[in-house]
Order: sequence, then C-alpha cells, then structure tokens
Amino acid sequence: MPENHYNESPLLVAVDCVIFGFDGTEIKLLLIHRGFEPLKEKWSLMGGFVQPNEALDEAATRILKQLTGLSGVYMEQLHSFGDPARDPVERTISVAYFALIDIHTYEKQISESYLPEWFSLKKLPKLIFDHRQMVHIAWQRVQYKAALHPILFELLPEKFTMPQLLSLYKAVYDKQLDKRNFMRKLLTTGLLVRQKDKEKETSKRGAYYYKLDKKKYSSNLQAFMSFLPAKEIFR
Amino acid sequence: MPENHYNESPLLVAVDCVIFGFDGTEIKLLLIHRGFEPLKEKWSLMGGFVQPNEALDEAATRILKQLTGLSGVYMEQLHSFGDPARDPVERTISVAYFALIDIHTYEKQISESYLPEWFSLKKLPKLIFDHRQMVHIAWQRVQYKAALHPILFELLPEKFTMPQLLSLYKAVYDKQLDKRNFMRKLLTTGLLVRQKDKEKETSKRGAYYYKLDKKKYSSNLQAFMSFLPAKEIFR
Repeated sequence: MPENHYNESPLLVAVDCVIFGFDGTEIKLLLIHRGFEPLKEKWSLMGGFVQPNEALDEAATRILKQLTGLSGVYMEQLHSFGDPARDPVERTISVAYFALIDIHTYEKQISESYLPEWFSLKKLPKLIFDHRQMVHIAWQRVQYKAALHPILFELLPEKFTMPQLLSLYKAVYDKQLDKRNFMRKLLTTGLLVRQKDKEKETSKRGAYYYKLDKKKYSSNLQAFMSFLPAKEIFR
Repeated sequence: MPENHYNESPLLVAVDCVIFGFDGTEIKLLLIHRGFEPLKEKWSLMGGFVQPNEALDEAATRILKQLTGLSGVYMEQLHSFGDPARDPVERTISVAYFALIDIHTYEKQISESYLPEWFSLKKLPKLIFDHRQMVHIAWQRVQYKAALHPILFELLPEKFTMPQLLSLYKAVYDKQLDKRNFMRKLLTTGLLVRQKDKEKETSKRGAYYYKLDKKKYSSNLQAFMSFLPAKEIFR
C-alpha cells in the first residue's frame, strides 16, 4: 500500500463457509436458518465476522467447528466477495471458503443451535445476499479441481466401494462415465487399498471395500491425477 | 453470518497487485518504492485501500491503472491474506490480485510518481510485510494455470515469433522444453495465425511472426489446452 492513509474507513470482514457433502446419490449443501434481522429465518451459508486477532483460516476453522463440531476437515479459501451492495446493513467483505465433508460420519455431530439442514445442490432454496453466487463459484471450483486432483475422497466414508466411488463422480459431473476406463485409471494410481470384507447389502455378489492409502493420498493431493477426460468435461 | 454482531470491530481492507511481465528472456515483477512510514523506501507491491463504494475488482483495476496507465489487462483475484500481524501498524486484510502484462508495450506508460522498477523474479529485493509470500503464491498460480490454459500470451507483444514463445515457456518453467512437440501441439490448437512478415534481427533465415486468433483465444481461455506435460512439471 503505497499511500499514507491508514486513516481510511475500515470495513467489516466476514468469512462464509460453503460446505459440501455426498449422501450416496446426491451432492448436498449445508445451510442454516439465519437467526437475526435482516432476512431472519432465511437460508444462509454458515459464516461469522473475523475477530481482531484471528487469521482468515482460523476464522473459517472456528466457524466450521461451531456448526458441525468438526475439525481437520478439507477446507480451502475460495474467493473474496466485496460488492458494495452485497450486505444491505453494512459494507462487509466476505472471504468465502469451501469444505468437503463425509455427510454420514458427521451427521450426528452437527450443532442444533443453528438448525442446519442439508439441501440437494439441484434444489436449493433462496439464499440471502450473494450466497447463491458463492455456492456456484465454489461448486465450479470443486468440479475443476476434482478433474485434476483426487479431492473427492474427502466426501466418502473411510471404507467405500467402487460403485460408491462411481456414483460420487457421476453426481459431481452429472454425466455417465466410462466405468471400466475410470476404474482402470483409478487402480493404477495405487491410491486405493482393497480390504478383505465386502459390502453385501446392495448386491448379492457384493463389492469389495477400499480404503485410501493415506500416505500416498496426502503426498498426491496436489499432484495432477486425472481419472477423467478433463478436456471433454470442460469444453 | 448467523450471529448478530454488526457491532464487530471493523478492519482495514487493502488490495495488492502482483504484476508480472516478460522481457524476452526473464520473467519480471513490477515493484514500487514505498512512499511512507513504516518501511518507507522499501520495495513493495503496488496496493491501496478499498474505498467505501468500490468493489474489490474495481479497486484492483484502479490501482493497476494508477501505476501503469493500463486498463483492460489480464487480472485475477489470487487470495486474501489476513494474518493479524502482517501489517505492523494496523490490522489490514489484503486481497491480492495478479496481472500479466506485455512489458514492452507498456514500459513508457508506467507512472513515475511511484518510481516503479522491474525486477527479475530470480533476483528480488527484500519486500515489505508478506509481499514475498504473495509473489510466491501468485507465481505458483501462474505456472499452474499456464500448464492448462493459454494465458501466457498476455505476456507477449501482439506479434511474436515461435522462438519468443518458446523462450517464454522456458522462462516460466525454468526448464528445457521439447521444442518440436511443443510447437506441434501449439499449432494444432488453431490459436495462432501466421503473418506474412518475418523477424530478421535474431537470425539470417528469420522467424515468421504470429498473431493470436483473438476470437478463438477468448473463447478458449478457460478451456483446457495444455502444451506441456503438466503431470511431469508438477510431480
């Protein structure tokens, strides 16, 4: 900042969290009932103001924990939103984050004080302010990133089957995938470790459970590892 | 924001611009001499505070224009930086942007009031606050994005030769490229239109000038168009 105006008018800075989950069939978004005016009772992303001694990532972690009881969740800073008219009460800059969580494991831990609810991404209610835009941009980012990096495992339980994984990718890209090709590419990454037991509720033959090789996974999370024809998906 | 505390303590919000150029050999970064205390005379990114009625993108555009006289430049929001201790005077959140400009075309238009200077990315001076970190993250983003999308043309003049383009990619990834493979991939995109004239200063035979097919370029800027073995580069 080259100009000497530390006497500039300060602004409010908030953090909003776009929290995605997967219920086995659909991608879901976690929303809360806004508890105060304006727009009381409307659906909203979970958010809060950045505290004086708090870094942005810390604020996002605190807010996610408040709502879901969770820590150690996959979360990334998404984008900052600063349209002067985005909050009708007071000028507020919002730094948006997105998080990917396993909907089943954490269902029970979700705080009841905010009456949070999971909504299908395809049937969202009206959201306050520019939250719809945040969700849109967050979802584009997830689709983009997941075509290049293995981040979608964050949405699955610790043990999962190939059909579950396939359903997840189908839900994310809303299209049929070449199952054989997808599985072949996936297995050659060495990311997956086949377990001894099978899931037998959905089919007679059963489907082997897999777990992630945690070490390989963490070291490959930023590596390019594409299971999908990214070019075709985004053309 | 679910909690009713619009009476929260407001913060200062700044925008900082990481401006990259290419001089034909090296990638350069545009820095200014900070004109006020603290850290007066130290090297700094160009930045400024967000005004009460200004969107974030508008602030970034204004600041870039102030320094370089340029508008219509390729610019993207990068990341927001909010460590409580990042600015020793007052808590300031900075929304960083990066810009890619053609160093030659705009050399003359650069404002003299901030004494800006181009520095080689490999020989940067000490920068104030967390600006070094901003530059690092911005440069990683450019390398990442340029491996997937044709954004580097923003760094070249309107007319350029294949050797120039090759030097650019070499400078960006700091490694030798498979020239023939690279050129083949590039030409098959149909992005480039060969001109009738040649550049003859660097070699006797001369090298044809090329221009971008502007229409194809704009519609393909977000498309995946990789001229490089991205997997190898980022492994």
